[in-house]
This record gives sequence, C-alpha cells and structure tokens, in this order.
Amino acid sequence: MKNAIVIVIFMLAVGNAIAQIDFDKKLKDLGIQLSEPSKPVANYVKAVRTGNLLYLAGHGPVSGFTGKVGKDLTIHQGYEAAKSTAVSMLSTLKAELRDLNKVKRIVKVLGMVNCTSDFVDQPKVINGYSDLMVAVFGEKGKHARSAIGVYALPFNFSVEVEMIVEIE
Amino acid sequence: MKNAIVIVIFMLAVGNAIAQIDFDKKLKDLGIQLSEPSKPVANYVKAVRTGNLLYLAGHGPVSGFTGKVGKDLTIHQGYEAAKSTAVSMLSTLKAELRDLNKVKRIVKVLGMVNCTSDFVDQPKVINGYSDLMVAVFGEKGKHARSAIGVYALPFNFSVEVEMIVEIE
Amino acid sequence: MKNAIVIVIFMLAVGNAIAQIDFDKKLKDLGIQLSEPSKPVANYVKAVRTGNLLYLAGHGPVSGFTGKVGKDLTIHQGYEAAKSTAVSMLSTLKAELRDLNKVKRIVKVLGMVNCTSDFVDQPKVINGYSDLMVAVFGEKGKHARSAIGVYALPFNFSVEVEMIVEIE
Repeated sequence: MKNAIVIVIFMLAVGNAIAQIDFDKKLKDLGIQLSEPSKPVANYVKAVRTGNLLYLAGHGPVSGFTGKVGKDLTIHQGYEAAKSTAVSMLSTLKAELRDLNKVKRIVKVLGMVNCTSDFVDQPKVINGYSDLMVAVFGEKGKHARSAIGVYALPFNFSVEVEMIVEIE
Repeated sequence: MKNAIVIVIFMLAVGNAIAQIDFDKKLKDLGIQLSEPSKPVANYVKAVRTGNLLYLAGHGPVSGFTGKVGKDLTIHQGYEAAKSTAVSMLSTLKAELRDLNKVKRIVKVLGMVNCTSDFVDQPKVINGYSDLMVAVFGEKGKHARSAIGVYALPFNFSVEVEMIVEIE
Repeated sequence: MKNAIVIVIFMLAVGNAIAQIDFDKKLKDLGIQLSEPSKPVANYVKAVRTGNLLYLAGHGPVSGFTGKVGKDLTIHQGYEAAKSTAVSMLSTLKAELRDLNKVKRIVKVLGMVNCTSDFVDQPKVINGYSDLMVAVFGEKGKHARSAIGVYALPFNFSVEVEMIVEIE
C-alpha cells in the first residue's frame, strides 16, 4: 500500500515535469536574447499588477524600426518590427516577474501598426508579435487580440503593442 | 408558519423568473440570426477567459462593410457596420459560453471607426454596436466605452470592436 | 503590558494617518475644481465596476480643446488638453466612488492623441494626464500606459483617454 502511494506520487511528479515547460529555457532554445528592459519615456510605469493580472504598458521595437508600414516598411519588415516589440515586452515581463514560469496565460494583446491609409494587412504584421508569444509559451501564449492601423506613434515607431498577462 | 415559508419561497421563485430574461430567447425575439463564429485570421484566439472576465478579440462586420466612414459610407451605413460587428461578436460569445445567460455584464467596449480625418461622429457609428448589446442584455448590456477614429483596419473593415464581458 | 499594547495601537494609528493621504484634500490643495461629470454622449455608461476593477469610458477634455496636435495645437496645448481630460475623468471617478480615497491604484491608461501624421510626441502630450494622476494619487497614481496617435476623435477632441482603476 505504502509502495503504491510512492509510485503514484512519483508518476504525478514525472507527469508534472513533462507538462511543465521551462519558459526561460524555451527563450534560450529559440535563441532570443532579452535586453535590459526599456525605461518609461514619460511619467508612467512599465507594468502594474492587480490581482492575478499584469497590465503591460505600450512597447515599441527594441531597435530602429521606424516609419510607416506600406510606405517605409514592407509587411515582412513590419513583422520583424512586431517581433522586436515582443522581445522588448518579454524583457519587461522577465524583469517584473523574475521567472517567466509565473506566466499562466497571455490574455490580451492590442497591436497597433503605424501604416498608410490603404494598408489592410495589420494581422500579418502583428503576427510577428503573436508568433513569438506562442513560440515561447505554447498554448498559454495564445491570446485574444486586436490589430489596427494607427496614424502616428511615439518616436515614429512602426509598431506599438500593449498586453495583459495572467500570472500565478 | 410552514405555509408562510412556502409562500415566501414561491414569491422568490416568481420574482426570480420575472427578473431573469432569457438572452437567447431575446435574440430570437429581435430577429437576430447568429452566424458560425468567424475564424481568427491569424495566430490568435477569439476569446480568453481569466477569472470572471472574458476578453474578446477584435471583431469586424459579418459581411461586406468596407471602406472609410465619411467617404465610402454614411453615418447610417457605419451604424449598420457596427451592428453587424455586434452580431459577429455575439456569435463568438455564444460559441464560447454555449448559453448567453451566463453573461453578467458587458463591461467594456473599444469601438474603432475606419474614417476620414474630419469625421467626428464615431459615437453615432458605434451606437450600432451598443444599441444591440443593450437590446439583448438590457441593463446588463450597458458598458463603458471608447469610440475613436482609426486610420486603417484589417481587410479595410469600416468598424472593429473589442470587448470585455463579466461572466458567471 | 496593557500600556505596551495601547502604545502599539497608538503608533499603528499614527503610522496609518501619516501613510494615508486624503486624495480629496489633495485635489483641493492642487487647486483642482471638479466639474459636474459629463454625460455619456451615446448609448453607454461612464463607468462599470467588475470585482475590484473600475473601467472608465473614453473621456475628452472638459472645455474647448479641439483640433489636431501638430497643426492646430502645440505640444504644450496638447498637454493642457490631456490635463483637462484628467480633470473630467476625476470628476467621473469622484461621482462613481463618492470618496476618492477608495482608489487603490490607477492601473492602466490608454491615451489617444488626435494629431498629424508626422507627430511623434504623444508621450509628452499624455503626460498632461499622467502628471495630474500622480500629483493627486502619488505612488498609487502611477500606471501602465500606452500613448498613440489617432486619425480622428469624437467632437474633434484633441485628446481622448480611457482608464482602469483598482478600488477597495
């Protein structure tokens, strides 16, 4: 009887280990290098926790993705800008949580594309952000999302994204 | 004494039945036909639940409302585009919850109108969305809202709306 | 022993009094006059509470700040428009809560600037809003924020802001 209990506990532990992906390790496997989290450019903070929700401020790309998609940038370059924005967001998330394994779910993403008036492929651009979240967090990375085209962004960023994350 | 208790219970039951509107029936009464919920057009999901909140992704109109309000569409046509967006959102909501009576409150709506630079009647357009929510859910359908004009939307949709719903 | 307990309770009370800033008094000290909260301009409500979160609808400036920042308004005028929007929001918040001391945290702000295509100083404009929140609520006023440029706003407002507040 005692042995049976030990076996059950052992199996539960193994099962848990299999189910539990290490998100920090995943980042490394994907070759993603987090940066020093960007500083707020004005009188606000990068993230606020309330209950189990973490609200993350609007983030832009880490490096020089500026200009309007559809004129200054192609869709592919816009995708890369969105991916770079995801890396910046993950850097903030890591700094806030210390441990990315505290992420229970990426809940909501608002993706804003600085674009021309006739540009209609905002979803393809913001995929650069979403694809990275899903690559890192798997099922937990799948989020509700809006993608829209905006007229102008701070620093002429090509993309800005804000996000809500459920944490433990 | 026992009779009194029975009467009280009876009255509570009747009161509850009166207070309780069947939202699925309400939809039918309003002649609103839900559609097969639209598929996400990219790497995201239509809705994510966290706690008692359901975050719904950005939705556009079910059918051909494209172009910019103030140029390609009148305010009235914009209103119809927003109403169509509400039907699309309700279709997703129904698919997620199975039973619309689980809705406790429509909490928050962000209504985005694809419009011209000098268009200032975004509230009148997004009313097409809000009016339907209130028609279906009554007091529980009344939500906090922002209505804004955006430069461009996916598929050249005239309207895009995202929503937060409190559920049981 | 009894005396020691009395002293501890006394110290806790004093400590609490020091820690507790009266936000209504703070408003008065800052010389900010709240207005009658604006009425919703369409079929929605100004605020919805769910759990400990209060979702506030999009607000514009109290008085005549219209037109596009970068053309009709300077950055400084945009800042004043955002500050005026904060006063309008605080008026709604006060009407909803009766007592501003129920505010536990300003969680999230989405600041939208009606601007020209080449305008990139949205953060400096929305600081007019954020600075006032921090002036009133101190550390509790520090929020996650996105600042973006939009193409058009209701009534040609120069600024529109929506907000989420954690309350007791």
